[in-house]
Amino acid sequence: MQNNELKQIVKNADSAINQENFDDLMDFYSEDAILVVKPGMLAKGKEEIRRAFEAIADYFNHSLIVNQEKMEIIETGDTALVIAKALLSANQKTDSEFSMERIATYVFKKESDGVWRCIVDNSYGAELLE
Amino acid sequence: MQNNELKQIVKNADSAINQENFDDLMDFYSEDAILVVKPGMLAKGKEEIRRAFEAIADYFNHSLIVNQEKMEIIETGDTALVIAKALLSANQKTDSEFSMERIATYVFKKESDGVWRCIVDNSYGAELLE
Repeated sequence: MQNNELKQIVKNADSAINQENFDDLMDFYSEDAILVVKPGMLAKGKEEIRRAFEAIADYFNHSLIVNQEKMEIIETGDTALVIAKALLSANQKTDSEFSMERIATYVFKKESDGVWRCIVDNSYGAELLE
Repeated sequence: MQNNELKQIVKNADSAINQENFDDLMDFYSEDAILVVKPGMLAKGKEEIRRAFEAIADYFNHSLIVNQEKMEIIETGDTALVIAKALLSANQKTDSEFSMERIATYVFKKESDGVWRCIVDNSYGAELLE
């Protein structure tokens, strides 16, 4: 189940997060995308998602690094489910160092311009059930 | 994150599986849906998905019971990500009793007739990464 185009898109989005390049980052999201900021807290639409990423960057004292270690993609038609092992680390967080692995779930949609964009960004994966 | 309509649809699909009512079951799937039969094995489209469910029913000696114990739904526009804790059991399997819990991931799409249908059925969830 390989889709190298989508894997590259996810990697490019990670680079944009890691460089805090939020203008570029927003291009990876669909207009009505949803980001799970944390369980029970959603950001909907580019404006809210951008503000959430700015708050996350502040929280991690601008040292957050996100990297997908492994991805599986199930794609059909204009929809793709991406299951990923994501490693998050932040070495400058004020009160403590931070490193964690998450099993994330993303849904991508190929939009009318032929570009895959993220429509659901749930880096918490199944933690939502806890 | 409640969508009672979608929760009911998933429950109705479970009933169809449990009753081996595969005609009804196929109504829950989009034409180009993908079912993860097991990691590395996909069924694509209603015909393949139906054959996979028939084989699964045989494998469990017609005693498979599927039930979602908990669901979280993230919905936006015509796309919904469903994360579910699914309990599978089969008390008539030839060689052994069988019971397991799975964290499943489903993607639903609201189609042009206004009905939500499953486009990705991945009952293995993050096990695909293993």
